[in-house]
Amino acid sequence: MKIIELKETITASNDRDAEQLRQELRKKGTLLINLMASPGAGKTTLLERTINDLSSQMNIAVLEADVDSSVDAERVAKAGARAIQVHTGGMCHMDAGMTRNGLEEMGYEGIDLAVLENVGNLICPAEFDTGAGKKVMILSTPEGDDTPLKYPLMFRESDVLIISKTDVMQFFDFSIEKCVERAKKLNPNIIFFPLSSKTGEGFDEWEKWLKDAVKEWKNN
Amino acid sequence: MKIIELKETITASNDRDAEQLRQELRKKGTLLINLMASPGAGKTTLLERTINDLSSQMNIAVLEADVDSSVDAERVAKAGARAIQVHTGGMCHMDAGMTRNGLEEMGYEGIDLAVLENVGNLICPAEFDTGAGKKVMILSTPEGDDTPLKYPLMFRESDVLIISKTDVMQFFDFSIEKCVERAKKLNPNIIFFPLSSKTGEGFDEWEKWLKDAVKEWKNN
Repeated sequence: MKIIELKETITASNDRDAEQLRQELRKKGTLLINLMASPGAGKTTLLERTINDLSSQMNIAVLEADVDSSVDAERVAKAGARAIQVHTGGMCHMDAGMTRNGLEEMGYEGIDLAVLENVGNLICPAEFDTGAGKKVMILSTPEGDDTPLKYPLMFRESDVLIISKTDVMQFFDFSIEKCVERAKKLNPNIIFFPLSSKTGEGFDEWEKWLKDAVKEWKNN
Repeated sequence: MKIIELKETITASNDRDAEQLRQELRKKGTLLINLMASPGAGKTTLLERTINDLSSQMNIAVLEADVDSSVDAERVAKAGARAIQVHTGGMCHMDAGMTRNGLEEMGYEGIDLAVLENVGNLICPAEFDTGAGKKVMILSTPEGDDTPLKYPLMFRESDVLIISKTDVMQFFDFSIEKCVERAKKLNPNIIFFPLSSKTGEGFDEWEKWLKDAVKEWKNN
């Protein structure tokens, strides 16, 4: 498994770098998704199932950003996606320059969907534009339905909220209704998909959204 | 509920500031614990139960650090501890200067045990000495037993590892044995307490450790 050690790029120009990367990805027809969540919310497990279901319909690549280890990249590679592991040198987020370096090291020619699995964290990743076309966050039901109150920026910045681990939500008194109400107060346009990567419940809706987003990205 | 808005202090001198704060706390007989975990790992629920059990035996205060909201401080205040909410201005960690400001705003005269509930995050909080006498981290079983591989610094830095939500671990294929083995590779001296804040399982051992640590802090 290839591991890339990255250093933070100059952040003053991050917004400009991000916009430039987004335009290049648009020209190449590659939708980059910035996938953000807490540690253990189920980012990798969601990707494994999604790749299994969709890899016959599109070319998928995953940029796994972690402080350390390469366990996640190995898992998504096994599921059938091109994958590269990126180490952030202790940093709690990815910026546009780091994302570009990772994508270019991996190679994304012919890739329809590239997923940046960001560092597990609900704070710093929300603050940096990576150049992604869409931002997707996962909140797992064990984290609690009051999470939007504590980490508002992440909910404000995300296009999509995946509520994961719905198969165990009764053990955590998690209310999808309350959670969505709190998220919509911060971001009225947020789209949400409750699902379970274990049972597959809710995956049809999520994967339909994903396929439509890839199509739309290529056509605009 | 009092809310304090904090700004980052000069980090060049953070280690020195932290050491000075630790010595002052030692003189006053206040053990400060830096409690760190991911969002939703159960920091506040652990504190509620611990305060309920121990508040007749010692004076407890809690500094709740969050990016936003004051829901956690309200919960621990209801459980019977002195509590103050601290906002970090979007930052993902607390440093020694911020901790001192929070403690002084709250007042900690006569407090035996002060808990800094750090921002929910497994990366940044591990990098900053806050002046605490002991560092305690929580890993909840839904986060997975491979978390030590991904966030090694947090495990290296902590004196105590609480493995929370043991009542649901069978749903997440979480192995306490594997998790502890991985944590001990990073930090052979780490002490661990598997427990459930819902059922109370494992609390006797954790609370015994806490009472002993408070006693020891006063006697040295």
